[in-house]
Amino acid sequence: MKKLLFASDYQEGAHPKIIQRLAETNLMQSFGYGMDEICESARERIRAACGCREAEVHFLVGGTQTNATVIDALLQSYEGVITPDSGHVSLHEAGAIEAGGHKVLTIPHEFGKIGAKAVEEYCKEYEQYLNHEHMVKPGMVYISQPTEYGTIYSLKELEALSRVCRENNLPLYVDGARLAYALACKQNDVSLKDLARLCDVFYIGGTKCGAMLGEAVVIPKPGRIPHFFTIIKQHGGLMAKGRILGIQFDVLFENKLYETIGQGALAAADKIRACLAASDYMLDFDSPTNQIFVSLNDSEVKLLAECVEFSFWEKLDSGRTVVRLATSWATSDEDVERLTEVLQKLHRRAISSIQ
Amino acid sequence: MKKLLFASDYQEGAHPKIIQRLAETNLMQSFGYGMDEICESARERIRAACGCREAEVHFLVGGTQTNATVIDALLQSYEGVITPDSGHVSLHEAGAIEAGGHKVLTIPHEFGKIGAKAVEEYCKEYEQYLNHEHMVKPGMVYISQPTEYGTIYSLKELEALSRVCRENNLPLYVDGARLAYALACKQNDVSLKDLARLCDVFYIGGTKCGAMLGEAVVIPKPGRIPHFFTIIKQHGGLMAKGRILGIQFDVLFENKLYETIGQGALAAADKIRACLAASDYMLDFDSPTNQIFVSLNDSEVKLLAECVEFSFWEKLDSGRTVVRLATSWATSDEDVERLTEVLQKLHRRAISSIQ
Amino acid sequence: MKKLLFASDYQEGAHPKIIQRLAETNLMQSFGYGMDEICESARERIRAACGCREAEVHFLVGGTQTNATVIDALLQSYEGVITPDSGHVSLHEAGAIEAGGHKVLTIPHEFGKIGAKAVEEYCKEYEQYLNHEHMVKPGMVYISQPTEYGTIYSLKELEALSRVCRENNLPLYVDGARLAYALACKQNDVSLKDLARLCDVFYIGGTKCGAMLGEAVVIPKPGRIPHFFTIIKQHGGLMAKGRILGIQFDVLFENKLYETIGQGALAAADKIRACLAASDYMLDFDSPTNQIFVSLNDSEVKLLAECVEFSFWEKLDSGRTVVRLATSWATSDEDVERLTEVLQKLHRRAISSIQ
Amino acid sequence: MKKLLFASDYQEGAHPKIIQRLAETNLMQSFGYGMDEICESARERIRAACGCREAEVHFLVGGTQTNATVIDALLQSYEGVITPDSGHVSLHEAGAIEAGGHKVLTIPHEFGKIGAKAVEEYCKEYEQYLNHEHMVKPGMVYISQPTEYGTIYSLKELEALSRVCRENNLPLYVDGARLAYALACKQNDVSLKDLARLCDVFYIGGTKCGAMLGEAVVIPKPGRIPHFFTIIKQHGGLMAKGRILGIQFDVLFENKLYETIGQGALAAADKIRACLAASDYMLDFDSPTNQIFVSLNDSEVKLLAECVEFSFWEKLDSGRTVVRLATSWATSDEDVERLTEVLQKLHRRAISSIQ
Repeated sequence: MKKLLFASDYQEGAHPKIIQRLAETNLMQSFGYGMDEICESARERIRAACGCREAEVHFLVGGTQTNATVIDALLQSYEGVITPDSGHVSLHEAGAIEAGGHKVLTIPHEFGKIGAKAVEEYCKEYEQYLNHEHMVKPGMVYISQPTEYGTIYSLKELEALSRVCRENNLPLYVDGARLAYALACKQNDVSLKDLARLCDVFYIGGTKCGAMLGEAVVIPKPGRIPHFFTIIKQHGGLMAKGRILGIQFDVLFENKLYETIGQGALAAADKIRACLAASDYMLDFDSPTNQIFVSLNDSEVKLLAECVEFSFWEKLDSGRTVVRLATSWATSDEDVERLTEVLQKLHRRAISSIQ
Repeated sequence: MKKLLFASDYQEGAHPKIIQRLAETNLMQSFGYGMDEICESARERIRAACGCREAEVHFLVGGTQTNATVIDALLQSYEGVITPDSGHVSLHEAGAIEAGGHKVLTIPHEFGKIGAKAVEEYCKEYEQYLNHEHMVKPGMVYISQPTEYGTIYSLKELEALSRVCRENNLPLYVDGARLAYALACKQNDVSLKDLARLCDVFYIGGTKCGAMLGEAVVIPKPGRIPHFFTIIKQHGGLMAKGRILGIQFDVLFENKLYETIGQGALAAADKIRACLAASDYMLDFDSPTNQIFVSLNDSEVKLLAECVEFSFWEKLDSGRTVVRLATSWATSDEDVERLTEVLQKLHRRAISSIQ
Repeated sequence: MKKLLFASDYQEGAHPKIIQRLAETNLMQSFGYGMDEICESARERIRAACGCREAEVHFLVGGTQTNATVIDALLQSYEGVITPDSGHVSLHEAGAIEAGGHKVLTIPHEFGKIGAKAVEEYCKEYEQYLNHEHMVKPGMVYISQPTEYGTIYSLKELEALSRVCRENNLPLYVDGARLAYALACKQNDVSLKDLARLCDVFYIGGTKCGAMLGEAVVIPKPGRIPHFFTIIKQHGGLMAKGRILGIQFDVLFENKLYETIGQGALAAADKIRACLAASDYMLDFDSPTNQIFVSLNDSEVKLLAECVEFSFWEKLDSGRTVVRLATSWATSDEDVERLTEVLQKLHRRAISSIQ
Repeated sequence: MKKLLFASDYQEGAHPKIIQRLAETNLMQSFGYGMDEICESARERIRAACGCREAEVHFLVGGTQTNATVIDALLQSYEGVITPDSGHVSLHEAGAIEAGGHKVLTIPHEFGKIGAKAVEEYCKEYEQYLNHEHMVKPGMVYISQPTEYGTIYSLKELEALSRVCRENNLPLYVDGARLAYALACKQNDVSLKDLARLCDVFYIGGTKCGAMLGEAVVIPKPGRIPHFFTIIKQHGGLMAKGRILGIQFDVLFENKLYETIGQGALAAADKIRACLAASDYMLDFDSPTNQIFVSLNDSEVKLLAECVEFSFWEKLDSGRTVVRLATSWATSDEDVERLTEVLQKLHRRAISSIQ
């Protein structure tokens, strides 16, 4: 039997409407580098969704590229980026930020998040050092919504963070690689409009949220990053056939598709979490979006790996292993059912092996 | 009437078979980052076409990204890349090579090309400086096939260049952004197998040659660039849904499509060149592939711009302007006919204005 | 009364013999860039002291420059440098390592040191991640002797670290900015010869150890870093009048001056530590070299600052402040006496204020 | 007989007064990193000489370091530096500018200089390209005074250049590695005050002009480069014992020493030039400062090399070799006399070999 794939949300193709639009527009000719009418339409739709008619919108191909480009564009050479130590830019981007010349300044995360107070203290502590001119200056703050741990910032938390950032003259940048899964979440009270109001730059993730590829960088205040087009080019993020990216977002922002596309993934994740709870698994912590973290012992890991593709997360000091299961907009009911059966069976085997 | 688009070869969509394959495989699930079976199939086909069963094949998204990544990977920190002064990496990549820390070492081009002798002399001259340890060491050679000027290296020229490179311990890298247009050219005698034999790294261009996006980097000797996967990631060139790139090349290398896809473009270009010659236009020089360079006076430029989208190339000292017209695999007979009509009309107007 | 300067060991001039030699040789003419006979003599003396006749010795101007240059030279673009989180390269070099494109990979320090086991586990953990090719590869280990906390690695510790480094193919680099103070320390059992045997690269600090300026990089195995001369030049570390640096080390390595020059500083530091202990100050921890760390309450900090220049180290959660006092090869008995008087007076005032 | 050293102006020690001051102040204690009173005095003297009481003055160690640091500080990531193709930053700094991420944009030099008109045209041409956002934006202009060819910009030329730079929003930076030799030159009409008025940043060279080491960066408008201190540190250019640099410039700017120190070098160079002219040597071109360029045939090169150390400059197409002879503030009359004798003897031998 084929393995169940729950390793990540990029293991799917694209939303069928995107494929359809690609086919329909394929014989068109168009200007390159995002200067075409489809990109313009997509930009307009994103601006409308963000309640920000003046916003700059730029399309890039992938997440690491987007993070490296935006961060390099926002920082001066002597500045670093504050991020939770669990942040994607800190751990899983092969040093792309440092390759651009900037230090990643980490703050210990709480379930993937950092609070306004922690950022404020970081800045104060920096100022307190008499020789801080020998140190890397905090130059911006990077967070993700949802976080690497599937948690979400509340509006109150984001407002507090935004306030501290503005008081300290730090641009706030939100990585929305999985933003659709936050927007679709019942507990979420942060809208696209809030992001546009509270951030200096954020990106709306396509790759993990129904697009074939692509991330849309939103700069609410136009001109905030001079010559961003050239900076994107220099970072290798400018696509000649830009319209391919435009199509993704033009479809995703038609009839609010982006704001609802994550709902199935969340329902699926809830079912899996419920199954895990019912079977006495140890949920590593409660995450309300499409990522599920569960800690297993070695034999459970082995058995699960036989029929399910998942992500290794971390080894605990207790010897147990935290694994991640991720649902996506494309996860089928059938796969969820099969997964819950596997999990229950595993649980029964584990029990019987004890008795 | 809609403008005729002859500005570049990236103004089209993708070959219809690619769209079809994207649609057919869309509901599949797959591993990320190029680890899937479609990518593997595409890699196998490319290896076969290159006669190089051991070759490493990596898929990246676009040309600037590919050049910046490969060049950074091949050079030591104290080395630079030798390139014709007309090379894309020198002029039109927004400083992406330098952003990676490397100097672009230019040699004056001859119709877009540099010869083995010029490279040899460059190396000798470098060695001759007593204080060359204060200078940037030539660390590799970059050329493109076809060149920025649409010209092609003959097999003899490429063999000579390869020999000099090996004698001087310089990796030879060929940018094949438009490679399909060289392969389809009657005058061409350099095959993919020759490239695999003579280069250290080369890339097979997808974006401008029928793909929706994507470039395939071929490293004939596996292991030539250690940890290239991580280097690609660090440069923001690793696509999560790698299979999208795999599909492009799996289709393009099925039944030798890639080796023939450029034929229509070349026939179209030949027709346009014939029309230009017949109408006494000044062809800037003879280029056998899909790019046509013609020098116009100011009023001709203005008139042409009314109905055709083309590329500004350069301003000559004489006051005339060189413009570039590019055909592509998707150029229709109808558009070629309309263009030749426009060119003839322009010519007649120019004549009558003189008389 | 003039303030007592105990803020750092770079607040002095140079050993009088260096000034004398500068004067004596001033009217000489010589080749530039370290190609002169004085540099050669200094190199020979350092090679002899290190028991390593083949070693490469390069002279650079300062510590940050040396660290940035050596680390950039040893790492590939996809690699980072493992260092204690207290390491100078991590905190106090204004992002110079990241400016060269490399991530600083921190391990929690124990009194400034990291152990062989921690490095081994770091490497294992890296390997354990299935997706570690998305992460920065540990590429070398950086430590300092003595450490930022004035502690020293024992020979046994250094041997263990060296073994783990070699097993994991990680060059070991030792920052010896204050090396003279380790060599002069009674508890020390690590000689220059041991460093040459156990490290891939280390530097012998001049600036803080009696020189006017300069650091001597020792590469025990010649050729370990190809084109290091050019790399130094590129990093702005090559001095035209290289002989000035040669003079520093030629004097410091004549008659083993370097190995004894720190003795006075250590005796002074011991006296100060004894005084602090006798007066019931809280020594932050026991450091055997020329740096003394003591935690003070706010009023003590304020009173001390009135007559002594010291370094702010860190604010403890308890509200107390750790300050650092540093002696040097040039610290006079008179200044030590005055400092101990000040400390005792402060203590008495503190007592009386309680009673 | 010992060889005569005329290879460069860094082959000497320091002006005797500097050695004397180093000795006198050696036992002082002082704050580090240029915060001491000697540095402050030197800064004041430089400000006075430049007629610019508000200027920021920073001391760095050497020329490559200074150029790399200032250029990196003035440019945005998407910008490059315009320089004559003969510029030191272009050819002889081992790629230090590119290592900082910036392209060197060359303009063909005329005897080492570039004119206002050439810069203006470069900027216009850049703007003219429709796709110039794909290219490196000219971000500043770098020139040197005197140039690599020993020529000097006249006040009129510098004013024109400054005007064009300001019109195009390009900071103008002057590399004054050999500035003393321009200031002492009879043909020169550009004063330090003019430089302060016309440039955004310039540096006053110490290393080649009588100092033991050191270059003084002058920023006439304070705050022009925010956080320049940190940028210097990051580039490894911050000296812990900053006072050593302060002493150099405090002495050189006492009683206008800097403005006259080059006089002897120029007188010596004039004598050598006169001898060369009298002996029918081919002066490569007329340079009014301390560098003399003469073209020799192979046998002359060989004979000269037997008793004189000089610099190889370039190989002409004619087969002749241009060599450079440089005098300095420390060149003795005796050495000049010996050199002219050698040159005359060579001339006679050459003549007799013909007859």
